[in-house]
Amino acid sequence: MDLQRLEAQLSFLMEADKLKNMYRQTYTRMDDLPPMPEHSNVTEPYPRRENDAEHSFSLALFTCILAEYSNEPIDVLKTMKMVLVHDIVEIDAGDTYCYDEAGNSTKAERELKAADRLFGLLPEEQQAEYRALWEEFERQDTAEARFAAVMDRIQPLLLNLSRNGLSWKEHGIHLHQVQKRNERLGEGSETLHDYVFALLDDANKRGILPD
Amino acid sequence: MDLQRLEAQLSFLMEADKLKNMYRQTYTRMDDLPPMPEHSNVTEPYPRRENDAEHSFSLALFTCILAEYSNEPIDVLKTMKMVLVHDIVEIDAGDTYCYDEAGNSTKAERELKAADRLFGLLPEEQQAEYRALWEEFERQDTAEARFAAVMDRIQPLLLNLSRNGLSWKEHGIHLHQVQKRNERLGEGSETLHDYVFALLDDANKRGILPD
Repeated sequence: MDLQRLEAQLSFLMEADKLKNMYRQTYTRMDDLPPMPEHSNVTEPYPRRENDAEHSFSLALFTCILAEYSNEPIDVLKTMKMVLVHDIVEIDAGDTYCYDEAGNSTKAERELKAADRLFGLLPEEQQAEYRALWEEFERQDTAEARFAAVMDRIQPLLLNLSRNGLSWKEHGIHLHQVQKRNERLGEGSETLHDYVFALLDDANKRGILPD
Repeated sequence: MDLQRLEAQLSFLMEADKLKNMYRQTYTRMDDLPPMPEHSNVTEPYPRRENDAEHSFSLALFTCILAEYSNEPIDVLKTMKMVLVHDIVEIDAGDTYCYDEAGNSTKAERELKAADRLFGLLPEEQQAEYRALWEEFERQDTAEARFAAVMDRIQPLLLNLSRNGLSWKEHGIHLHQVQKRNERLGEGSETLHDYVFALLDDANKRGILPD
């Protein structure tokens, strides 16, 4: 056994655990929750926001269940690996809310530095593989990256709809902003684009997402 | 588009979101945590326990990073799908702590009923695929299931070691119990078995895990 190699891999995996403490804007589901188990020490009231590890879990499950809706055939394993690491740079660079224009102007630089440190924990060839997946996701120039981006956008959107648009309301988000943010969904999946845009129109009619 | 099919898939995915509210015994990492973001509404003090979605996220990432240590070649995609759904029955059946003997006596029946309902949300052929993955994991009769079980055991163990054995201390767990629980690791990965057993000996020497 190459102990140094295994310990490099484990140091990356333990570092990735910090995604569990990077909280996002999206709330987890509210309706029909099971009671909190007696042994739980979680004291915050429902609802609570989801973190990057939970979000990445959802994207991986979304990817394998919904892969058939990609416009082009995709390598599902590669896409699942991609979604698992796509947010890892937020451990150092923080989460930037998609409608926060100031935060987004410095995002690229902060994330590049984070990628150097975090993927740098892995053994050389895995570092190359996973960093390339992260870069491919950012570049959006393959079928896998485009489908991963569809997952990354529709998962919080569907959660938010299940919460009647709570995080949109908090930030005063309007229909046209959500439409703009999701206008490229069709590049990865025309089916999911059309489905989601119909949901947005419906949310608008129900008063969840104002004009 | 087959709307009924897509909506069945989304109902399963939204249901799986409840894994984010199923809390486990293991604590997330403590050291070197980033500050809580200003917008977070999480009020519980660090440390906090991890939930099934976070655990499943970790297992998927562990699987693709550590696959080379499987005794036998594995289908990594299949193994990743397996770990993503292996705990889904806990949404209905609850989490049973691995050292809780009473809870474990009724676990199988509760989980079978849960599997009927939860996988039953999916379209027919996906229902068959994912339910078979869950059953395969339970039966432990393939290389993928054995490697997935190694991931399922070493991930909380490594987290717990990073927390100096906090959840072992809480439950008064002794070295021989952890050794017994992990005695079959070698069936999936001899390398990881040997590595983990050396860590356990070391933890015993450091007084984290008493005889």
